[in-house]
Amino acid sequence: MNELSRYVSHIEHLNHDAMEKARTRLGGLVKPPGSLGKLEDIAVTLAGISGRLFYDTNKRCVIIMSSDNGVVEEGVAAAPQAVTHMMTLNFTRGITGAAVLAKQFRTDLIVVDVGVNADIDHPLIKNRKIRKSTWNIAKQDAMTRDEAERAVLTGIETAIEAVKNGYTLLGVGEMGIGNTTTSAAVLCALTGIPAEQAAGKGAGLKEEAYRRKIEVIQTALRNNKPNPSDPIDVLAKVGGFDIAAMVGLYIGGAYMRVPVVIDGFISMIAALAASRLNPDIKGYMLASHASYEQGFVHAAHYVGIEPCLNLNMRLGEGSGCPIMFAVIDAACAVMRDMGTFEQGNIGEEYLSEVKEGDNFTV
Amino acid sequence: MNELSRYVSHIEHLNHDAMEKARTRLGGLVKPPGSLGKLEDIAVTLAGISGRLFYDTNKRCVIIMSSDNGVVEEGVAAAPQAVTHMMTLNFTRGITGAAVLAKQFRTDLIVVDVGVNADIDHPLIKNRKIRKSTWNIAKQDAMTRDEAERAVLTGIETAIEAVKNGYTLLGVGEMGIGNTTTSAAVLCALTGIPAEQAAGKGAGLKEEAYRRKIEVIQTALRNNKPNPSDPIDVLAKVGGFDIAAMVGLYIGGAYMRVPVVIDGFISMIAALAASRLNPDIKGYMLASHASYEQGFVHAAHYVGIEPCLNLNMRLGEGSGCPIMFAVIDAACAVMRDMGTFEQGNIGEEYLSEVKEGDNFTV
Repeated sequence: MNELSRYVSHIEHLNHDAMEKARTRLGGLVKPPGSLGKLEDIAVTLAGISGRLFYDTNKRCVIIMSSDNGVVEEGVAAAPQAVTHMMTLNFTRGITGAAVLAKQFRTDLIVVDVGVNADIDHPLIKNRKIRKSTWNIAKQDAMTRDEAERAVLTGIETAIEAVKNGYTLLGVGEMGIGNTTTSAAVLCALTGIPAEQAAGKGAGLKEEAYRRKIEVIQTALRNNKPNPSDPIDVLAKVGGFDIAAMVGLYIGGAYMRVPVVIDGFISMIAALAASRLNPDIKGYMLASHASYEQGFVHAAHYVGIEPCLNLNMRLGEGSGCPIMFAVIDAACAVMRDMGTFEQGNIGEEYLSEVKEGDNFTV
Repeated sequence: MNELSRYVSHIEHLNHDAMEKARTRLGGLVKPPGSLGKLEDIAVTLAGISGRLFYDTNKRCVIIMSSDNGVVEEGVAAAPQAVTHMMTLNFTRGITGAAVLAKQFRTDLIVVDVGVNADIDHPLIKNRKIRKSTWNIAKQDAMTRDEAERAVLTGIETAIEAVKNGYTLLGVGEMGIGNTTTSAAVLCALTGIPAEQAAGKGAGLKEEAYRRKIEVIQTALRNNKPNPSDPIDVLAKVGGFDIAAMVGLYIGGAYMRVPVVIDGFISMIAALAASRLNPDIKGYMLASHASYEQGFVHAAHYVGIEPCLNLNMRLGEGSGCPIMFAVIDAACAVMRDMGTFEQGNIGEEYLSEVKEGDNFTV
């Protein structure tokens, strides 16, 4: 068993005793049972992950995996490859969407270079470069299997290090021009859906460029022949260093028993690949927002997870994660601070007709 | 023209110059145009409301209108009427869902008794009682037209006072056992949709009680004959003091040019009634979450507004507003703190293919 397999096979189940205790407490709070919907679900999940009723989300971060994709030479992205490099630097300057939203919600950013096509020597950017840019998936595999495994391991190690440094809540972000094309290809490879459904109309890509994007994905799938039952093979053949490293973040978070928040389309694709490696990893995931990118709904469906926010966002970078952290804060506050029926001078029997999952009329 | 009509007719249009300036600034920030979706829409709306590019949301509140509904004697609610009184007191003790969430998101609560069926003398509860409980809409009108107007005025005056006290962001909440029945009746009266679509399966209400709820609504509509083109008449005949006062909050907020956040089902019904009084009021509304109560989607459709959060919540109380305040904070942070293309060392022309509303591929 190699190092990667060791991590993947050592994901523990959620703590069902703690989840039951969480449900009991939530049921005794001064509200109709279940009436706080997903806030209650989140509180139960956090109990299952941590084994504790009350979860502290004060130290949280978004981890951004930056990398370039050889496929951009096919003209499938509206922005030039150099934007990956510039935006990676911009995170450290606090001026990108993800950086601004992270600051707003007391969230740290961890920026990791896993394959930017430029030399980056910056004290705030972790240099974990596998190689400068992947190869062009329209012409060959994106990377070797060994490189794919190393990229995933990079994500795992980054998550483990973050948890060891005290972070109890992780968000998954990325920067990589061309990565909706590779993400769509991974989605097709893992699920068999056609490229037309997986690829976003994209980029204000004109109709012609969009058709080109679909063709590129179809070509890559046909020539590189990713094995749907082997997610590492899929990542190597049609993915990217960014996606692979994000897969590692989910594995590492689950391995360390901390919740990991999914951002948008690319992040959801990585979540799908991670959950294919070991379905138990899904228990540690929380979805944030529904990306506007059309493949997102398919990916979320296959992961079996539903986002909490509907903001028509399609920026990436991990920008949805800090907003979701606020929703998670809300769930923690409900669990921690709401009064019980007894404290509320309301007999629980008043509400005894109400069943979990039903509506409540007041 | 009476006092109420004076307020309703003095709602100003949004400031389109400021909105255009906001769009221009957002378009120059270091992201694909439109990629922050509703966060950008919110930032533009706030500019239209305030006339300023940067909006300060630091002082915000949820205003809770508490009142009882005579219709509860028909057995349409799972909880007894006394719960309205107890929960109204519980807000001041900080232990209800809305109180906990408000505190989490640095939000004040303003609790107003507009018709609780009990004597309340509490320093933290505003006594603006119209009367102790409405009448039973299954047997007669809920209230007189004069009472309806006074309830709406109470809401207007409460909102105006809040703004004068420095609040720049208002949320609309309620507490009133039986008020999903009256809300559903108002929805039917204003839109003509059948009671089966407007009324939630409700309250873990068993099938029999649910059918009773629908019958009660049908009876009230048939006997009391609310005039669909006269929202005040509708409120008086099948509404409640809580809903009417909430209608006033939207009017008062718009009159004072501050944004008002809609919570769940009851709050959305009040928003619908307010927008029927003057469609310009809608410009000042922001929707928070999609309530689990089935009538919500119909009401939101008729208002023509889309929520940002999908949390399956059905608690009421204004509990969704503080979470939405965090989303609004996010919109303000984007507008205020993100860098421009120039600051980001990225030529705007790189992204020039991207059109507002299209997806963006990176």
